[in-house]
This record gives sequence, C-alpha cells and structure tokens, in this order.
Amino acid sequence: MAVPVWSVDPRTGKQREQVAVEATAGDVDAAVRAAAAALPALADRSVRSRLLRGAAGLLEEDAERIIAAADAETALGVPRLTGELARTAYQLRAFADVVEEGGFLDVIIDHADPDAKPIPRPDLRRFKVPLGVVAVYAASNFPLAFSVPGGDTASALAAGCPVVVKAHPDHPATSALCADVLRRAAVAAGLPDGTIGLVHGFEAGVALVKHPSIAAAGFTGSVPGGRALFDAAAARPRPIPFHGELGSLNPVVVTEEAAAERAEQIGAGLAGSFTLGVGQFCTKPGLVLAPGGEHGDRLVAALTGAAAGAGPGVLLDARMRDNFLKGVAARAGLPGVAQPVPAGDGGEHAVRPGFLTVAAADLAGQDAYDLLLEECFGPLTVVVRYGSAAELAAVLDRLPGNLTATAHLGAEEATRSGGEAAELLARLTALAGRVLVNGWPTGVAVAPAQHHGGPYPATTSTSTSVGGTAIERWLRPVAYQDTPPALLPPELRDDNPPGVPRRVDGVLER
Amino acid sequence: MAVPVWSVDPRTGKQREQVAVEATAGDVDAAVRAAAAALPALADRSVRSRLLRGAAGLLEEDAERIIAAADAETALGVPRLTGELARTAYQLRAFADVVEEGGFLDVIIDHADPDAKPIPRPDLRRFKVPLGVVAVYAASNFPLAFSVPGGDTASALAAGCPVVVKAHPDHPATSALCADVLRRAAVAAGLPDGTIGLVHGFEAGVALVKHPSIAAAGFTGSVPGGRALFDAAAARPRPIPFHGELGSLNPVVVTEEAAAERAEQIGAGLAGSFTLGVGQFCTKPGLVLAPGGEHGDRLVAALTGAAAGAGPGVLLDARMRDNFLKGVAARAGLPGVAQPVPAGDGGEHAVRPGFLTVAAADLAGQDAYDLLLEECFGPLTVVVRYGSAAELAAVLDRLPGNLTATAHLGAEEATRSGGEAAELLARLTALAGRVLVNGWPTGVAVAPAQHHGGPYPATTSTSTSVGGTAIERWLRPVAYQDTPPALLPPELRDDNPPGVPRRVDGVLER
Repeated sequence: MAVPVWSVDPRTGKQREQVAVEATAGDVDAAVRAAAAALPALADRSVRSRLLRGAAGLLEEDAERIIAAADAETALGVPRLTGELARTAYQLRAFADVVEEGGFLDVIIDHADPDAKPIPRPDLRRFKVPLGVVAVYAASNFPLAFSVPGGDTASALAAGCPVVVKAHPDHPATSALCADVLRRAAVAAGLPDGTIGLVHGFEAGVALVKHPSIAAAGFTGSVPGGRALFDAAAARPRPIPFHGELGSLNPVVVTEEAAAERAEQIGAGLAGSFTLGVGQFCTKPGLVLAPGGEHGDRLVAALTGAAAGAGPGVLLDARMRDNFLKGVAARAGLPGVAQPVPAGDGGEHAVRPGFLTVAAADLAGQDAYDLLLEECFGPLTVVVRYGSAAELAAVLDRLPGNLTATAHLGAEEATRSGGEAAELLARLTALAGRVLVNGWPTGVAVAPAQHHGGPYPATTSTSTSVGGTAIERWLRPVAYQDTPPALLPPELRDDNPPGVPRRVDGVLER
Repeated sequence: MAVPVWSVDPRTGKQREQVAVEATAGDVDAAVRAAAAALPALADRSVRSRLLRGAAGLLEEDAERIIAAADAETALGVPRLTGELARTAYQLRAFADVVEEGGFLDVIIDHADPDAKPIPRPDLRRFKVPLGVVAVYAASNFPLAFSVPGGDTASALAAGCPVVVKAHPDHPATSALCADVLRRAAVAAGLPDGTIGLVHGFEAGVALVKHPSIAAAGFTGSVPGGRALFDAAAARPRPIPFHGELGSLNPVVVTEEAAAERAEQIGAGLAGSFTLGVGQFCTKPGLVLAPGGEHGDRLVAALTGAAAGAGPGVLLDARMRDNFLKGVAARAGLPGVAQPVPAGDGGEHAVRPGFLTVAAADLAGQDAYDLLLEECFGPLTVVVRYGSAAELAAVLDRLPGNLTATAHLGAEEATRSGGEAAELLARLTALAGRVLVNGWPTGVAVAPAQHHGGPYPATTSTSTSVGGTAIERWLRPVAYQDTPPALLPPELRDDNPPGVPRRVDGVLER
C-alpha cells in the first residue's frame, strides 16, 4: 500500500494536499541508479556550471510559486522565504564560480626528479575526483537553502556528484517544486533528469544511506536523527562519509566590560537573535553567559523588555511545538531557574518566546542541569549569570561542540592582545567552528571563508555545509604517476589548458 | 599482573628481550592526559618545526642502534631498513617544511562587504586548528616509516597534535628506541616529553581509540583489525575521524600491445615488485590482468623464470607465515588455478615466493573465487588471463577499492587520447587512489602530490597517509567573524606577519 505524503499547514494543522507517496525500497534503488547513470556526464566542469546557473535562474523565475508553497507549509513568512530564495540562488551561482575557477581540484604537480634524495622521484600529479552519488537529507527549518536546492545539493553537483534528496516531511510540496526546477536545469544543461532524485518518507531515508551506490551523505537536522543515520553510514560493509550538522547551543559570553558599556544594546540584540524565525535557526544563541551584578542586571532588564514585546509565532510543525513546550517546562522546573519572560503556549498552533535565568554556581557540576546545556529548538534562550572568571570557565568546560561561539567584549579589551579576551577567544575556538566578536550568530554568510560546522554534535565531521569549501566533502584525491600527457586530465597537463590554480614543484601558480 | 612485552626474532622464533609491559587502562589514560597537556605548547609552529627537524637528526644519530634492533625483530634486513630510516628522516623534515610554509592552514579571508547581495557580509577569516591528541596505530611492515616516528606521527605533530602511539607487537624494541628519540627531540624543542606517548598491547589499543580525549586516529594494518577500531571510533559518544589504511590488491593491467612489445621486461619487473620485502608491502601487486595468447604466455614465462629465481624469505612473524601458507593453499586449491611457481614453505621460519594463474572466464561471477580478489599478505601474486576487453572489464568491476592501480600500455596507445587506454585509466581511477602507467606500485614516493589512500577498504576515509596533504587529517577549520585584529591569530591579520599563503577576497596571495 502506497503511503501518502501530505503537505500540512502548520498555522491550522490541516492537510493542504497530497504531494506524493513515500518511496519504497525499489523507488530508492531506482532513484540512486538513475543518479549513478548521470555521473559520467557530470565529469565536464562546464556542464556543472551551466546546471548550477540554470537552476538559480529557474528558481528565481518560479520564485512566487515556490515561496507561496513554502510559506503555506512552513509558516516561515513570505519576507523570510523571499530572502532565503535569493540566498539559495546566490549559493548555486557561488558554486558555479567555484567550479569554473577550479581551485577546489587542489592540483599538485611534482615533476620527476631522478636526483631526489633519499631516492629518485617519479612524476606525480594529483587532483580531486567526485566520490559518486550523494544522499542529501533536507532540513526542516530551511525549505530552500538547506533543502532540495540548498547547499548540500549545490556543492555536491559542483563537485560532479549526482544527488538523491530525502525530502523533509515539513515541506514536501516545496521539495517537489524545487526538484522540478533542478531537473529542468539538468535537462537544459544536457544532463539526464535523474541527475537529481527526490524521495519522501522516513524508511526511504534509511534505505538511502544504506544503498551500495551511495558514496557520501549530507544531513542537517536533529541529534537523534542524524546520529542514527551516521551510525548506519558507518556500519555499512563499505562505510561512507556522513557529513551531518546535528545540533548546537551557540554559547554567547558577555564580559563585564561589555555589559558595563552597552548592556541595553546587547539585551536587545540578543532578543532579536534568539526570536528570529521563531527561534528555529541552528545558530540560535541558546546559552548566554552574562555577568552577575549591576551591569548584568541591566542586560537582563533590556532582554526582558525586548523579549516581552516579541509576539507569538508558529513553529514548523505540531511535533516541534509539543517538544518545545515540554522542553521549556522541563528546564523552567529546575530549582533556581527563573523565567523573567516565560516561553510557552502562544495560543492555538503558536508559541511565545521567552528566556530563563540561572546562576552559574547552581549549574556547576550538577547533572540535572545538563538539560540547560542541550539545544531547545524554538524561541528560548538561557541566561547564565556568572560571578567570576572561574565560574565562567567551569560552565564553558561543560559545553559540547558548537557551530558558533560568540564573545561580547568591551572597547578596550578588544584592542588588547594576550589578555583575558584573547584567552576567552581561545576557549571559544576550542568549542566551535565559527567564533564571533560583538555580533550574533544567526545569519550565516555565504562566503568563501565561511565555516558552518564544529566539534560534535555540531557536525559529525570536520567539514562545513556553507561556503565554498563545502565542496570538499564530495571529493577524493587521486594521484597519477608517470602518466603520459595524452592520458592525463587536462588540469594535470603541463600546459594547463583549463587554467586552474595549481601547486607545481612547490610553487603556487595561477 | 603485568603482561610482559617481548621482542621476538622471526628468523629463529626466539624471544630476544622483554621490552616493556602491556599498558593498562590507567597507563593509557596517563599517556593521553600527558599528551593533552602538551597541546598548548604545540600551538607555536616554529616549535613544531624544531621538534620535527630535531627528531630527524636524532634518528640519524641513532641509526645504527635502531636499524640493528629493527632488523633483529623484523628480519627486514639492514639495507632495506637503512633506506627506511633515511625515508623516515626525510619525511620528518618534509613535514617541517610544510609547517614552516603554512599553506596547510588553508587561510581564506573575506573582508566585510556592506554592499554585498543578497545581504551585507561580515568580515570572515578562516584557517585550520589542530584537532587534539591523535592516536597512531603502528604498522607491522614498516617499523619506522609507518610506525612510531612515521608519517602519521610526523603529520600529526606538524598539525600541532600531540600523539600517543600504539606500538606494533612485531617491533616493540624499535618502537621504544624511536619513542625515546621523539621525546628527546620534544624536550630539546622546549616541549614536555609527554608530547609523544607510547603504549603496548592489544587492549591498550582498544582503550586508546575509546579515550574521551583522543580526537582522531591513524592506522595502518589489516582489514579486520582496522575495521574493528574504525567501528569503535564511530560508536563513541563523540565519534572521531579514523584514518585507516586497511588493505589493497593493487591490480595491474597489461594490455595486449604492452605484452607484445615487452612481455619479458614486464614479467621480470612484476617478479621484482611482488617479491620485494618478501611481499610485505601494502602496495604489492596482488592481481595482474594479462592477456591470453602468445604475448601473455611470454609474460608468464618471464615471470616464471624470475620468480623461481627469487630466494625464500622470513616474514615479520610466525602468525603471518601461518596465514600466508594457509592463504596460498586455499587459493591454489580452487579449480582451474595453476601454480607455475608454487609459493609456500621455504624451510624453517621462511616462505618461498610464487604466483598463481587463472582464466578470467573461470573467475567471472563465481563467489568461490572472491578469495583471489582478497589481499594475501606475503610474496604471492595472481595472474588472471583475459581473452577480451569484456572479460577484463568484468574482473575490474568486481574489485574493491585499492591504494593503487597500474596500467602497462604499448608505446602507441600511450600517446592516444580518448581511446581504449584512456577508458582503462578512467576505470582504474574509479578503483584506486594512485594510478600508475608502466611502473610498479611498490615504492611510495614522499612528495607533495602523493596520494596513499583509496576507496574502502584501501582507506576508511578520503585521506592520504603519505605526502604533504596527510597533515589535513588532523585539522579542522575555524572562521572568525568581525574579530578585532588584536585578537586574531597572526596568520589572519591583514598584514600577515608570518607570510603564509592565503586566499584574500578571492585572490591567491603569497
């Protein structure tokens, strides 16, 4: 029996339309085989760049329809989704730039050296080749930028890897529209439409990561879901790389000096950041370490005012709303935890943003408080008041890995090398993949230097899912030894017809 | 009760001396903690380069003693071990060069762009930081170059990671001498001697990969052993990267044209390669696809002559000898398999090299013959005679991943782009991490462009364990957002005081 896949409106809880049926094991196999058949055609870098630019253009052409569907099934709102679509198109084109430039091939050429010590050296030429078909697991909270046409798909196609996407159940209609965009772009670039596959359903997602022809996987989602798939990837007869972005607390440390200088500004900024998108960003600041005393009190007062003024919002689905309400209640019920602005039920289908406060001294060393150090998906943050540098350090030492870690510093301490602020940044560097000063972690710029990843559970690997280097996840190096020029890939010939950047006999060349 | 660790002479089977006792869980914990304590001191790149150069010098100073110990417990012979020590010292210095040059930091800087579309961009500066303490599992067959002072250790130290090595039971005395060299070099460089730890014993190896403060592991060894440790690394509460080099068949394809031109030369070359070091190289050619017919017969005749002339040799230990004899017998007993030169018992403690032949048509599609497609550690190779391109392709399609794949081509076909030779090289590229033309895979040059790794089971990751890029295994990227210059690592400041290569606003700079 075919299991129907429904698009649901989270604002009403009502089914909107049946979009598809869940993929059977046979459907998954067919999608992976069709994708694998596209591998040779993707070897041509110019085809890949046409595909990516074409997809960006078609996404923009169909923007109105796609945004309407996404808003109807995610409640994220048209302005946010308009921005997300622009970001997604930008990202597709940014990866086209990466493909055309060719630096990602990491070409290294060492000419033969018969006089090399301790032994003569053969001619060696190394670059990177695509891994094969990539499984992409779409995220709930970014129906475009981290889903069917998102960063995992764009970077995999840029690397030359066909893709099969497991759609997220929160936006199946958007997923179908976007898969159609990608497939039309593939056909327009001269590729088979199987270059991009789409499957729906939990079981299909499990079957996908176990499929013998899947060569790697990208995932954005929860710790339990991501860990189960990571474990399945590692347990395969032939294990595959699993690049999962699972969860992050995104600690923020406010120094005494920063609070003294601009407590009100920090409190208001924090409220804006943790309530943005109804708190459904993986970079939401979920733990804020603020000083005790007068200036920390000012910060909490400002946060109280700003958070109380933030209206209720609708989460992506009813299950998330239930989990949020339960998560808030469990945390708020811990001894010593106060609720200056209580988060919780915001009326039918909605939730209210809020925050908790707790003393660092209470938190220290008590396992019951571990819950406060776990991500609570939705518009909640926890403000921990520390009384000393030692208390601050003790809390930081208990934190798991994070996507981001932020320091708010005073004007003077930001100019001092080697002092306490430098020490704090070193601590935060050990905790996260992105370290910010005097900013907010929500908002992840698509840029070559971006790193969106971090120590586990932030990421299951050392990779990034945003920015140009995200392409590295889908490649493996190959070295050619003493291979005649006629048989070398053009990027590895001495005359370098495609003009890619290379390191030749130790010297960087362009 | 302390379990003694003995150094054993494989030429006699006799215990030489007790070197140490097996490490308890407490010993492992102490070694990891001592290593972790060295992490901050290793942050300074100049200290790392002093350590690596110092270790190379001390290794050379102590060469005579180390080589004597290694020969006594591995039977690899003084000439080979003299070469291996030179290679190991070269490798330590090569990684010092890598550290000093700084390109491995992969610095990318994007200055803030308030006018960026679709949204303004913050200042982002990304480079790589060390992962933490690295566990190194030494190989049996390279007591120096892939053991205590070998490539995993050198690349980890170069990356800024302290190391705890699990010694291989085949050369505990050599391991102890080399650990002493590394520790003296550490102290001379101003580092604690715990920067490099050494543990003995199977259980200690298992405890090591599970230790919470181990951040990554490097392994060279067998498929079962490596897979068990890989599984343990993946099953940790916080999984860690496990870079294992497990096993490889290293297929060699000889075309009809190549055999016609130089069957005798290829046969002799093959004999030299598969018997080198008593067949104990991970890059030993274990499967040779040679054409049927007259020219293939000439090749087999030449191989027969050369292999029959190769004398017996002593394997690394008695267990390996038993496994080799069993492995040869099981393969030779398959129907249709011939033994032009039978491998086997070479007298007390020794084995004789030999090779098998089989028709590709026999091999095709029969699971019983899978054994011929598995590595047999020791001086044995399997020559598969193919009658057509289709038969050749059918065998290649059944192969697992490999470290290397080699083509022997005729003079004319080596000059033709887009023909059958190009197609063959594309097939071999899919199978391996290093593709050779008209050479032999044994002998892995230490060079920036080297790639010593390949699809599973050759490697459990996409990494290399030889060459400059081996350092990438022990690093993770971190991006700094809007961070004041005083608090940035020097490599990320606009003025770039250390002069490392960087990509700034899209442009490669040195």
